[in-house]
Amino acid sequence: MSLSLQIDRESRCPIYQQIVNQIKRQISIGDLPAGTRLPAVRHLAFMLGVTRLTVHNAYAELQADGWVEATVGRGTFVKAGLEVEALLAQHLEHHRHRLHYCSDMHRLLNTGTLLALAYAVPDISLVPSTQILEAFNQIKSDAAALLHYGGQDGDHELRIELTEHLKERGINTLPDNILITSGATQGLALITQTLAQRGDKVLVEVPTYLGQMKVFNVMGVEPVGVPMDEEGVIIEKLIDAIEKHKPKFISLIPNYHNPTGVLMSEERRLAVLDIANHYRIPIVEDDVYGLLTYEEKAPLALKALDKTDNVIYISSVSKTVAPGLRIGYITANAQLLDKFTQLRWATELGGTPLMHRALAIFFREGHFKHHMKRILPIYKERRDAMLSALRRYMPTHSTWTSPRGGLCIWVKLPPKGQYNDLYPAALMRGIVYTPNEAFFTEYSDEYYMRLCFGSQDPSTLETAIHVLAELIYERIELYQPTRITV
Amino acid sequence: MSLSLQIDRESRCPIYQQIVNQIKRQISIGDLPAGTRLPAVRHLAFMLGVTRLTVHNAYAELQADGWVEATVGRGTFVKAGLEVEALLAQHLEHHRHRLHYCSDMHRLLNTGTLLALAYAVPDISLVPSTQILEAFNQIKSDAAALLHYGGQDGDHELRIELTEHLKERGINTLPDNILITSGATQGLALITQTLAQRGDKVLVEVPTYLGQMKVFNVMGVEPVGVPMDEEGVIIEKLIDAIEKHKPKFISLIPNYHNPTGVLMSEERRLAVLDIANHYRIPIVEDDVYGLLTYEEKAPLALKALDKTDNVIYISSVSKTVAPGLRIGYITANAQLLDKFTQLRWATELGGTPLMHRALAIFFREGHFKHHMKRILPIYKERRDAMLSALRRYMPTHSTWTSPRGGLCIWVKLPPKGQYNDLYPAALMRGIVYTPNEAFFTEYSDEYYMRLCFGSQDPSTLETAIHVLAELIYERIELYQPTRITV
Repeated sequence: MSLSLQIDRESRCPIYQQIVNQIKRQISIGDLPAGTRLPAVRHLAFMLGVTRLTVHNAYAELQADGWVEATVGRGTFVKAGLEVEALLAQHLEHHRHRLHYCSDMHRLLNTGTLLALAYAVPDISLVPSTQILEAFNQIKSDAAALLHYGGQDGDHELRIELTEHLKERGINTLPDNILITSGATQGLALITQTLAQRGDKVLVEVPTYLGQMKVFNVMGVEPVGVPMDEEGVIIEKLIDAIEKHKPKFISLIPNYHNPTGVLMSEERRLAVLDIANHYRIPIVEDDVYGLLTYEEKAPLALKALDKTDNVIYISSVSKTVAPGLRIGYITANAQLLDKFTQLRWATELGGTPLMHRALAIFFREGHFKHHMKRILPIYKERRDAMLSALRRYMPTHSTWTSPRGGLCIWVKLPPKGQYNDLYPAALMRGIVYTPNEAFFTEYSDEYYMRLCFGSQDPSTLETAIHVLAELIYERIELYQPTRITV
Repeated sequence: MSLSLQIDRESRCPIYQQIVNQIKRQISIGDLPAGTRLPAVRHLAFMLGVTRLTVHNAYAELQADGWVEATVGRGTFVKAGLEVEALLAQHLEHHRHRLHYCSDMHRLLNTGTLLALAYAVPDISLVPSTQILEAFNQIKSDAAALLHYGGQDGDHELRIELTEHLKERGINTLPDNILITSGATQGLALITQTLAQRGDKVLVEVPTYLGQMKVFNVMGVEPVGVPMDEEGVIIEKLIDAIEKHKPKFISLIPNYHNPTGVLMSEERRLAVLDIANHYRIPIVEDDVYGLLTYEEKAPLALKALDKTDNVIYISSVSKTVAPGLRIGYITANAQLLDKFTQLRWATELGGTPLMHRALAIFFREGHFKHHMKRILPIYKERRDAMLSALRRYMPTHSTWTSPRGGLCIWVKLPPKGQYNDLYPAALMRGIVYTPNEAFFTEYSDEYYMRLCFGSQDPSTLETAIHVLAELIYERIELYQPTRITV
C-alpha cells in the first residue's frame, strides 16, 4: 500500500478533515485498494505529528461514511467492494428528501473540491475579515461588558446604526423598534412560531427557497405556493389562495427574489399591501438581497410603502458582509416585535454582543458602503459571465431569468429530457447546483435548476455551465422516442 | 431649569442611555420639576456634540417610559405629577408576572446602580476578555472562512476541545457527537421542542430556575415539580410524578442545583438513572455549574454514570468563561442529537464559527484551566462572605442552604412575615434579588429568596444582606397580631 498524507497546518480545513479527504481521494483513485490496512492510530499520529484524537476522529468519520471498516484488535481496513459511485449514490439516497439538499449544499461547499453553484452566498474571498477583526481591536475597553449577557433586543449601538441603514431602505424606525436576530432565518422562525401553530397555513411565492421551507417544516406549518411571474406574485392567485387557505401570513421576497431574481413591480407592491390590509393578514418581507443590485440604485423595501405597519421586515448582513456574523434583524409593529423578542429571549437569551458591536463599528466607520462599492461590480461581472455562458452553451428551449440583482439565476430545462439523474451526474463531474424539487411546494413535472454565481470567478462559471449543458444535451437525447420504443 | 449632562465617550454605556439615565436621575431628585421643558433635539445634540438621532432616541425612551411628554410643535416636557416611586411601582406592576423577573434582572443589572443579587452570572470583571480577543488575533488567516456559514454541529476544532473537556466531566464521546448551541438555554429549547408537544408535561426539580420555566412556557409545555431535599430530587416523589403525569423527560441539575446549590448524592444519581431507564423517559442534565466548585474536586456529571445513553447532557461556558460568547453544547445519543441538530439548523443555521474557534483556542492553550484556578477562590470568598453575613444579620427562623458550589444561596424567610412588598422595598434600597414565585411550579405560601453572590465583592455583599435583613425584620414586626386586631 502507498498511503501518503500531507498535512497543511495553515489550511482552513481541520487536520482530521485533511486526513479524511486525502484517504478518500486515494481510495477513489485506486491507490488504496479494498482490504488495505490503514496504519494504527498511534503510529499515524506519530508520523504526522498530530494527536491520536485527530487520527481517531479521521478514522471514525471514514468508518461512519462507509469507506473503511474496523475490526477490534485487527485494525482499520479499506472496505471491500467499494465504489466511489456507490458511495456517492448512497449519500444521495440518504439525502434524497428535498429538505436535505441544504445539508448537502453546506457539506459539499466545505469540501472545497466542487464547483458550488448551489449556494446563494457571498464569496469567502470577499468577506471583509480584516476590517471585522480590526473592529474587535477597537472595542478592547468594552470587551468584558460585551462578553456578558447582552440586552434582549441586541446591542444598542448596532440598532442605532441599523436605524440609519434602514432609512436607506425607505424604512423609518427607531433603535428600540429593531430586534437583532441570528440571521434572517431565525427571524423567520420567530415570526412563524409566534404567528402560526402546527397545522396552520402560510402563503409563499412559488418557486421559493429551501431555507424557508425548512423553517415551516420543523414548525409543522404548511406553506401554500402562490405562482409568480416576472413582476412578482400574481395578484389574482394571491387573492384565491387567501380566500381558500386563510393563511396566517404571506411570506414574500420582493427584491431580487430567491431563486428567480425577480424584482417585484411597484404596481404589484401596492396591490399586495392593499390585499393584505383588506384581509388583515401580515406580510413577512425578506429583504436579504435588496442591496445586491447591479443595474440600478437599490430598490426600496416593500415596507417603505407600508402605511399600516402590516409588514414584518426581516433582513441580514449574511449576503452582503458575512454569514458567519450570524446577524439579521426584524422591524415590525411594536406589539409583534415584543412577542418575537420574548420568544427569542426565552429560547436563546439573545445573540453575541461582541459580534453586534463589531458590525456596528463596521457600519459607523463607513466600511459597509465601501464594501458594497467593491463587491457589486464583482458580482455583476459573475452574473454576466453566467448569463453569457448560458446563452452560449445551453440547448434550445431552455430558458432562464436575467436577474438585475441577487445571487441566483433560475434556469428551466427543455421540456423533453430525462433529468432524473442530472443532479448526481453533475456531482460526479464536480458540479453541485440546487435542483428542481427544492423549490416547489407541490410536485412539478418541469425541471428547473437554481444556479448561483456568487462564489466562482467568471471563467470557472463558464466551465461549469459548459459541463452542465453537455449533461443536459445527453439527457435530451436519452429522451428521444427511438429509445423508448419496444 | 438646570439640566446638566456629562457624556462619557469612554463609557460602556451608550451615549443615548447616558442621557436617559442622567435626565431620569435629575427628575427623580427634583432638579427637573414637572413641566420643565427639555432642550430642542437639535440644540442639545449641538451642545453635547452628538448626533440628533442620539438625542432623539434618548427623548423617545424617556417618553416611552413615561418620564416626559412631547407635544408636537411645542417640545418635550417633564411629566406632571410624576413620582419616582410611582414609576417604579408602575414598572413592577407591568412586570409582575413571574416570567418577567428575568427581564427585570437583565434590565436592572444593566443600570449599574443596583446591587444585583438576582442574577446567577459570573462577574463582568472576571471575564477573560483579553485572552479571548488575543484568540481572535491568532485566527487571522482563518478569519474569512470562520466568517462564512459554519457546519451544522459547530466548529470542529471546538468540538475536539470539548471532547477532552467532557472527558474530565466523566463523559466519553466523540467530536461528531457534540452539538454546539447558543448557550445551554438553546440546548434546552431544542430538546423541549423535539421531545415534547404543546400540552405535554415534563418533570423538573422544585424549586427550579426561571430560565427553564420560560422555555417550557413559550413551548406550551407544562413543568410538573418534583420536591427535592439536601440530596437532590426525592425518589418516591419522582416515581409518583412519572406514574401520574407520563412526562416526556425529566430535567435535572445534579451539580450545584439552581437555586438551592444542592449536589445530588451518588445514591440518588443511581436511583434516578434506574428509574428513568425503567420508565424509558430521557433525563436532561444541565451541568452549567458543575465546575464552579469550592470544597472538592469538581463532581462528575450524572451522565458519567449513564450506561444506557439515556441522559441528554447540556452545559455551557456562560457561568465559567463568558455568557456573551453564547456557547453551550449538547451530547446525547446520536439519533436524538441529529434531531436537535436538524431543528437548530432549520431555525438558525448554526452559531458563530469565529466565537467557536476563539473558545477552542482558549481551551487549547490552557487558558480555561488557569482561568478556573483564578476565579474559584474569588467566588468561594464571596460565598463565604454572604454566608457569614446571613449568619450575622438574618432573623431567627430564617434558614438557608450552604452550597459547596455554584453561584446561589437559597434563603427561606421566617414563616410569620408580611413579605408581599419585600421585593419592591429592596429595590427602593438599591438591592435586587429574585423572589419566591420565580422558582415554583405551583403556588407556595412560604417565602424564599435566591441570592447570588457572583457579581459583588465581599463587603458589598455584607452591606446588601444587612439591608435586606433590616427590611425582613420590619416585615416580621408588621405581622404581629396587635397590628391586625380591629
